[in-house]
Amino acid sequence: MNAFEVPRRIRFSDCDPAGIVFYPQYFVMFNGLMEDWVDGPLGIGFADLVSRRRIGLPTVRLEADFRAVSRFGDDVVLSLQVERLGGKSLTLALQCRAAGSGELRMAMRQVVVTTSLETHAAIDVPADLREAIARHAD
Amino acid sequence: MNAFEVPRRIRFSDCDPAGIVFYPQYFVMFNGLMEDWVDGPLGIGFADLVSRRRIGLPTVRLEADFRAVSRFGDDVVLSLQVERLGGKSLTLALQCRAAGSGELRMAMRQVVVTTSLETHAAIDVPADLREAIARHAD
Amino acid sequence: MNAFEVPRRIRFSDCDPAGIVFYPQYFVMFNGLMEDWVDGPLGIGFADLVSRRRIGLPTVRLEADFRAVSRFGDDVVLSLQVERLGGKSLTLALQCRAAGSGELRMAMRQVVVTTSLETHAAIDVPADLREAIARHAD
Amino acid sequence: MNAFEVPRRIRFSDCDPAGIVFYPQYFVMFNGLMEDWVDGPLGIGFADLVSRRRIGLPTVRLEADFRAVSRFGDDVVLSLQVERLGGKSLTLALQCRAAGSGELRMAMRQVVVTTSLETHAAIDVPADLREAIARHAD
Repeated sequence: MNAFEVPRRIRFSDCDPAGIVFYPQYFVMFNGLMEDWVDGPLGIGFADLVSRRRIGLPTVRLEADFRAVSRFGDDVVLSLQVERLGGKSLTLALQCRAAGSGELRMAMRQVVVTTSLETHAAIDVPADLREAIARHAD
Repeated sequence: MNAFEVPRRIRFSDCDPAGIVFYPQYFVMFNGLMEDWVDGPLGIGFADLVSRRRIGLPTVRLEADFRAVSRFGDDVVLSLQVERLGGKSLTLALQCRAAGSGELRMAMRQVVVTTSLETHAAIDVPADLREAIARHAD
Repeated sequence: MNAFEVPRRIRFSDCDPAGIVFYPQYFVMFNGLMEDWVDGPLGIGFADLVSRRRIGLPTVRLEADFRAVSRFGDDVVLSLQVERLGGKSLTLALQCRAAGSGELRMAMRQVVVTTSLETHAAIDVPADLREAIARHAD
Repeated sequence: MNAFEVPRRIRFSDCDPAGIVFYPQYFVMFNGLMEDWVDGPLGIGFADLVSRRRIGLPTVRLEADFRAVSRFGDDVVLSLQVERLGGKSLTLALQCRAAGSGELRMAMRQVVVTTSLETHAAIDVPADLREAIARHAD
């Protein structure tokens, strides 16, 4: 499966007094990447999923390695790949690399579950989302 | 070693359209907890460390488990414990629990290194920080 | 009427690569102050107002003056005062001052309206909120 | 002078428990728009300005009107126009409109000054920035 990639410039608001990405901001960037992936290649509206269908995609586990700093103004590429599609969960591999050199800045493995936003209990991955992920994985 | 604990109410700005803590916000809360710990029990000014001494405490690795949701208005207790004090690094165990029931909401293991903010290279944990941590661990 | 005041230390996560408060963060701090005021002296649960009673307090207008920079680690005092209580709105005067010297860092006038979170239309200020504000103003 | 415009989708991370843009987030979006404008049409690297040349563009005053809510998933257009170019300051008119209908969601007038990031004192608008703004205004 090919990774879904989006270029991004590190913004002033991403950075801390050390002039580098404030690490929680990587998770905000990756959350936006997941939205772009669901909206774009998967063709499932992310806002529609959450607001109308009341299905959430909360994180239940993540492991992250921060390999090199990203500085204010850096051009990076964010990438997302599905590692595993379970019954009620999705394991994603996410990376942030320098745009030119491909230097790995940060890598993360994230397990998200599909939940009912009424009960916050896990539910089966909806059929259309499952099919879109399978199709995209070919 | 006793854990360092700080109570916190989950704020409007911590939460997402699902009405629960937006997960990157846990890391912002824990970053604030680490500041409070360095400023308070350790007695080393965090801002002084960063701004004047130009020493950073960036994260190089973290593992986080999200066990239960925290809702807007919830009272929680954030806790921090040192798991390991290495030559250039510090491994912290951080938790967010419900204030009353003690229900575990989120737990994280985080490795931070001490770095020079001029070069972003790892440096030895400064002597005063090391001693304060050892003293606090007794 | 006395101002409602809360001390606050400027955190790492409040600051930008220039080492000073990233200005949108003042609004996040003041939003937290309004929550503390509604929860504390007014005795109306802010989360209950929003989550159960489905009443919002969105901003419709604000004017802000940034007089002096606040640096990472600075101790400040945030204050809130009601300037005007209208039928469906509330005009607040908010300030951030240095803790010791009282130097004015940022001042803002903010008009918030009470709305139904179902329709986002303005509604009359609820009676209990109105009475709590009047009582607090004595 | 034509406005500089950038389309933007309202993200999950922009929104609050009411499902609409958390108002401080408009300022974060507009800060990003200013960066895009300085980097793009003006051709002055924003990160270079801040990090290498140590020139800041802090806000000294702003007035904002919030006319209609923006919901999670909405497509909006952010626009920036220079109202006035002073000796040490710049007055910007910023708007957020719905992408399709053009409905005005939020409008703001913002005065920024050019400062030395060593002293945080106002300095003359640098010649290259002044010329780029004048050229772009034609």
